Amino acid sequence: MNEPFTLAIDAMGGDAGPQAVIDGAAHAAAKGLDARFLFFGDAEKLKPMVAAKNFRNADIRHASGVVAMTDKPMHVLRRGRETSMWFAMNAVAEGEAMAVVSGGNTGALMAVARKQLGMIEGIDRPAITALWPTPRGRTVVLDVGANVEADEKQLVQFAIMGEAFFRALMDVKRPTVGLLNVGAEDLKGHELIRAAARVLREADPDMAFKGFVEGNDISKGTVDVVVTDGFTGNVALKTAEGAARLVGGWVREALTGTLNAKIGALFMAPGLKKLKDRIDPSSNNGGVFLGVNGIVVKSHGGADARGVASAVNMAASLARHPFRDEVASTVKTVMDRRRAFATQEANKEATVAAL
Amino acid sequence: MNEPFTLAIDAMGGDAGPQAVIDGAAHAAAKGLDARFLFFGDAEKLKPMVAAKNFRNADIRHASGVVAMTDKPMHVLRRGRETSMWFAMNAVAEGEAMAVVSGGNTGALMAVARKQLGMIEGIDRPAITALWPTPRGRTVVLDVGANVEADEKQLVQFAIMGEAFFRALMDVKRPTVGLLNVGAEDLKGHELIRAAARVLREADPDMAFKGFVEGNDISKGTVDVVVTDGFTGNVALKTAEGAARLVGGWVREALTGTLNAKIGALFMAPGLKKLKDRIDPSSNNGGVFLGVNGIVVKSHGGADARGVASAVNMAASLARHPFRDEVASTVKTVMDRRRAFATQEANKEATVAAL
Repeated sequence: MNEPFTLAIDAMGGDAGPQAVIDGAAHAAAKGLDARFLFFGDAEKLKPMVAAKNFRNADIRHASGVVAMTDKPMHVLRRGRETSMWFAMNAVAEGEAMAVVSGGNTGALMAVARKQLGMIEGIDRPAITALWPTPRGRTVVLDVGANVEADEKQLVQFAIMGEAFFRALMDVKRPTVGLLNVGAEDLKGHELIRAAARVLREADPDMAFKGFVEGNDISKGTVDVVVTDGFTGNVALKTAEGAARLVGGWVREALTGTLNAKIGALFMAPGLKKLKDRIDPSSNNGGVFLGVNGIVVKSHGGADARGVASAVNMAASLARHPFRDEVASTVKTVMDRRRAFATQEANKEATVAAL
Repeated sequence: MNEPFTLAIDAMGGDAGPQAVIDGAAHAAAKGLDARFLFFGDAEKLKPMVAAKNFRNADIRHASGVVAMTDKPMHVLRRGRETSMWFAMNAVAEGEAMAVVSGGNTGALMAVARKQLGMIEGIDRPAITALWPTPRGRTVVLDVGANVEADEKQLVQFAIMGEAFFRALMDVKRPTVGLLNVGAEDLKGHELIRAAARVLREADPDMAFKGFVEGNDISKGTVDVVVTDGFTGNVALKTAEGAARLVGGWVREALTGTLNAKIGALFMAPGLKKLKDRIDPSSNNGGVFLGVNGIVVKSHGGADARGVASAVNMAASLARHPFRDEVASTVKTVMDRRRAFATQEANKEATVAAL
């Protein structure tokens, strides 16, 4: 018995325009999502679009400004207080909405989120998640671009956040976690990755931490949560998208190259439809800004209605779950244990030195 | 009018065993490669395999030892001087062979190559190449695992080596070169990547340097040569392989799921054969160790005969080309210009300070 809750939707973010955003919310509602939608944007434009969809529960909040894709985050913080992005985030900050969805400029959205929501206690830096399909379901990869570098402590925090996120989204009790690394025996990664692995092993015995994974493990689904810095994660995600698109293009060629191929394709139409859906990136749309003190989902700027619906559903799944409290308490436990270990080690050394 | 030249083949390296190696060399020879093959390994085992293939020009050199996949590089350097890998490399070091191909342990092969061949003048660290298919042909990515980190100077050297390698292998006069980076406006990569880009722009005006590329550009073929550090390159390559395999698995499902699908697949058999060949990794087998003073091609340990043939053909293409001399002279030019720029800047500053 869930009461309907409120989602703040930045209707003006994204290259595809407000129609795709409204359509996406309507699509999610039609599929059973029982939420109240607050659409932020140009009221004149939005009114007919929203009216056409017969939402059971939706309101429009006028915002005169729009954050452009090229706006610098600092510019938006200083001069963007009349934008749909700013007002939508504010609805979460004020507690009116449980989550916000925006297809706007990532850097600006991150800056506005940090400014208005602040960070979860104990988390130094936010991380952006991405979902990736696997034969077993889905894997979450983080960070895919909030920070170009991450030290040992931040990787540990990403692991804790990613694990709690996966649990909240997928309803899995003990998601498995791996640290992205390279495989060759003699170059097992940077020292800081090894250090992060040590902390996770020693200080978080509750986590199903599986050690190091390699790039190919992302698509295999070897672990539920793949942890890395934002540079490596961004490269990996985009490389995987590129490779999937390349193979998809080859498949299309094979299916349409000749008349015989076209006839053959008719026979396998249901299988091909499923294949197309699987390759379709919209089912994985929605990057969550973990670490900020509120639910912020970044929808792809060019997402169609189905893609927006995925992002809206993701926001809804997270909104009801107390995962931010879990993150805060786990981070505290792990950091306390880590400090305790460090003190123990220092005491041992002092004892040895005194002998 | 090319005279046949000699290739040293470590016949014992690789998990697939010597049969796949001999078969691969025979496959390359049957397709027109006019080379003399020197097979290094257990003579008793190799004799019947080589005899069965009727090579026009092949010899066996006995080696009693084999480098195991788990051997540490240091161990091989100290105690591995009776192995097929060591002897095969020695044939290149002594000038008897023009290139060596091995499917053995990457770390050991790199250590043996550096020890016996030394480095090209001006190159600090070696880099390993990988070929990746694109709609336009192929892209080379380097480094994919020789070093977990690379500073600005090394990235510049990798770019120079990768460009010369692509020219030698693909017979392209002015290959385009890009530095792998992340795209989001506010986190345009590490400072050292930006510094490497500056050096390439200023100090190597002959190179068709296209600036930054992103992960998806690898499979698109946006540039011919993608330059990155060994950690990022290794993750990107393996992630791409994983994603391609995932989509390949979906395609297989779509083609074999139902009786109708199987009938359909018959109609499109030629297109599917081509698709299968394209997804087949063996056509891209062969990682070259750039920077060492000789041609060393690492074949995948599990490569089949076709894969080994690709690696052997790659070794042959490079062996005839003076690309190491090109690398040495370009590196010298670029580093000299860079020093000249630095001196200019220092003089300017001194002048300003004196005013």
